[in-house]
Amino acid sequence: MRMDATAIRAVLARTPALNIERLRALIEVAGLEHVLERGAIAEAHLPAAAHAYLTCPDTVALQADLRWIERSSACLILAGEPSYPPLLASIASPQPVLFVLGDASALLERRQIAIVGARNPTPSGRATALDFAAQLSRAGAVITSGMAVGIDAASHTGALAAGGRTVAVCATGLDQVYPRQHASLADKIREHGALVSEFPPRSPPRRQHFPRRNRLISGLSAGTLVVEAALASGSLQTAGFAARQGRKVLAIPGSIHNPLASGCHELIRGGAQLVQTPAQVLSALEFSLTGEGLASDIRPVGRRGALDNPYEMLLDALALEPATVDILAERTGMTCASVASMLLILELEGRIAPHPGGRYGPLP
Amino acid sequence: MRMDATAIRAVLARTPALNIERLRALIEVAGLEHVLERGAIAEAHLPAAAHAYLTCPDTVALQADLRWIERSSACLILAGEPSYPPLLASIASPQPVLFVLGDASALLERRQIAIVGARNPTPSGRATALDFAAQLSRAGAVITSGMAVGIDAASHTGALAAGGRTVAVCATGLDQVYPRQHASLADKIREHGALVSEFPPRSPPRRQHFPRRNRLISGLSAGTLVVEAALASGSLQTAGFAARQGRKVLAIPGSIHNPLASGCHELIRGGAQLVQTPAQVLSALEFSLTGEGLASDIRPVGRRGALDNPYEMLLDALALEPATVDILAERTGMTCASVASMLLILELEGRIAPHPGGRYGPLP
Repeated sequence: MRMDATAIRAVLARTPALNIERLRALIEVAGLEHVLERGAIAEAHLPAAAHAYLTCPDTVALQADLRWIERSSACLILAGEPSYPPLLASIASPQPVLFVLGDASALLERRQIAIVGARNPTPSGRATALDFAAQLSRAGAVITSGMAVGIDAASHTGALAAGGRTVAVCATGLDQVYPRQHASLADKIREHGALVSEFPPRSPPRRQHFPRRNRLISGLSAGTLVVEAALASGSLQTAGFAARQGRKVLAIPGSIHNPLASGCHELIRGGAQLVQTPAQVLSALEFSLTGEGLASDIRPVGRRGALDNPYEMLLDALALEPATVDILAERTGMTCASVASMLLILELEGRIAPHPGGRYGPLP
Repeated sequence: MRMDATAIRAVLARTPALNIERLRALIEVAGLEHVLERGAIAEAHLPAAAHAYLTCPDTVALQADLRWIERSSACLILAGEPSYPPLLASIASPQPVLFVLGDASALLERRQIAIVGARNPTPSGRATALDFAAQLSRAGAVITSGMAVGIDAASHTGALAAGGRTVAVCATGLDQVYPRQHASLADKIREHGALVSEFPPRSPPRRQHFPRRNRLISGLSAGTLVVEAALASGSLQTAGFAARQGRKVLAIPGSIHNPLASGCHELIRGGAQLVQTPAQVLSALEFSLTGEGLASDIRPVGRRGALDNPYEMLLDALALEPATVDILAERTGMTCASVASMLLILELEGRIAPHPGGRYGPLP
């Protein structure tokens, strides 16, 4: 059976035990157009299952896949190709093949931020997801989530409402929508972004697909923001993947009496960054602003730095020669109010002393 | 004028420019009973103001102080004495003299935890302060705060309600109660703990006293817990002192829409530890449990450790020889559910492989 590039991709997508190293070996041996030739398959030293499938692919499945691909204009991206998302390429064992519906460039053109959370959020959590997704979209980020009910749907919707782009990662083949109630949301996402899956058409929403979906969400994204999540939830699993992929994990705090804040709080206790505003998300992910920008200022705050360093700066400025609050404010770039309050603390600690003329200096 | 030890302490308490080093020098030169003798004063090389006051103390103030001390059974503790709180002694420039009303042993017998926060808390914040103070008291901690309205008063009250001990640090002389409405609370604190101040009797609640009060709260305590606080508030100042004194800063999160959670969130972003439960407070402060203990388990969670280390443990356990989930759970001490979920993640990452017989092992 003579196959074009799409058919070859579709066969590879169904090949068992095909990881990125094996895919690379196959293509290096023969080039993509020849990977189904017996010589190439033999030379790539594949596991028996992969070898057997490539030698004798399921042609019934392949015909159905190709009909769906043509009808839906889906595209299949192989790891190593220029359109494969570069952040995803950098994780351990990235998906060898991605199915994409909609505009595949949404996966590439801007950095993605994942927003995930509970299926049964509080009204306030849902509003937060909508608002953060809208503001982050306006600032130029693509919002990536899992199209589940609750926080995921609110995140996609917030991005769409702001005229932004959004990527939904699915736990099924892209020929179906899960959950069904999101059919119209999926249409909009396809129009203003993309639907992505590592599963071939007709794959149902199996239990074991969800962790793989979550790993793809975090792997595509510069960071994962958790809005509301219970302990031991799928959102925490996504956050765990993000941390292990070397990506930032951000979490929104809530009342200690809200069980859906517990997951976020455990993440923060484990090292995730607490964020209160969309600006803090962008700052944590070192996004440069594009688009319309944000309402609030972006002010990066380093861990611990906020408590310690300004005092050292002030002590350095004092060491030059005793000076007034105004002069110290000028020397350090801090406000007069900050300088005055810090001088008081340093004086109480016995580290500086008042000098004549309203000046402060080192201890005599 | 011949003076007894109490009178000498009272004079020292009003001596300007007397810090702990100068007090130590004076006492080393002559012994406490002789510190007001001209020879001793001269030999201690004190600043002019201290020298002048010690040579010629304000006897009218002294007489009034002594009358109040006798009437109220106040005690004066000098830095360096066995009854001076040891944690306070370890900060930079500790207060040379403390006035104490009530049971001075409350400052010594158990470790103190400071609970501070907004003067105008939400009902939920107030309830949290009450509850944490009560539970931490039952676990054996002394609760220290500033006797202000709001979170401070709720913290003292929670400790008292639980039959615990509490210390109120005051920004005035202890002959008065500030704010006035807390007269009956002050009585109870005196009965079941202590009122402490670095200010001599008749000192009014001056603006500049409050930072000094805050520095004393944090300095007495193993850690400072902030319950609700606005940005740029006194509670954040207390937390700043705690951090600079090398003490733990703990903060309770809240909704991002609650302005009184903002201060706590900024602290957490700056390195303070987020706590959800009294058990987490004790764990962070490395308290060993005494008293009735707490309802919830104490489970220390290291920063980041929670996300990373169990996987290494599991990989080590696998490296021995391929094993089933049950055996791996036994080898690592983790639950079967945790092991199963972690195995899935490691398998998806291509770091382990399923082996025959439901076992998992390193990649072949």
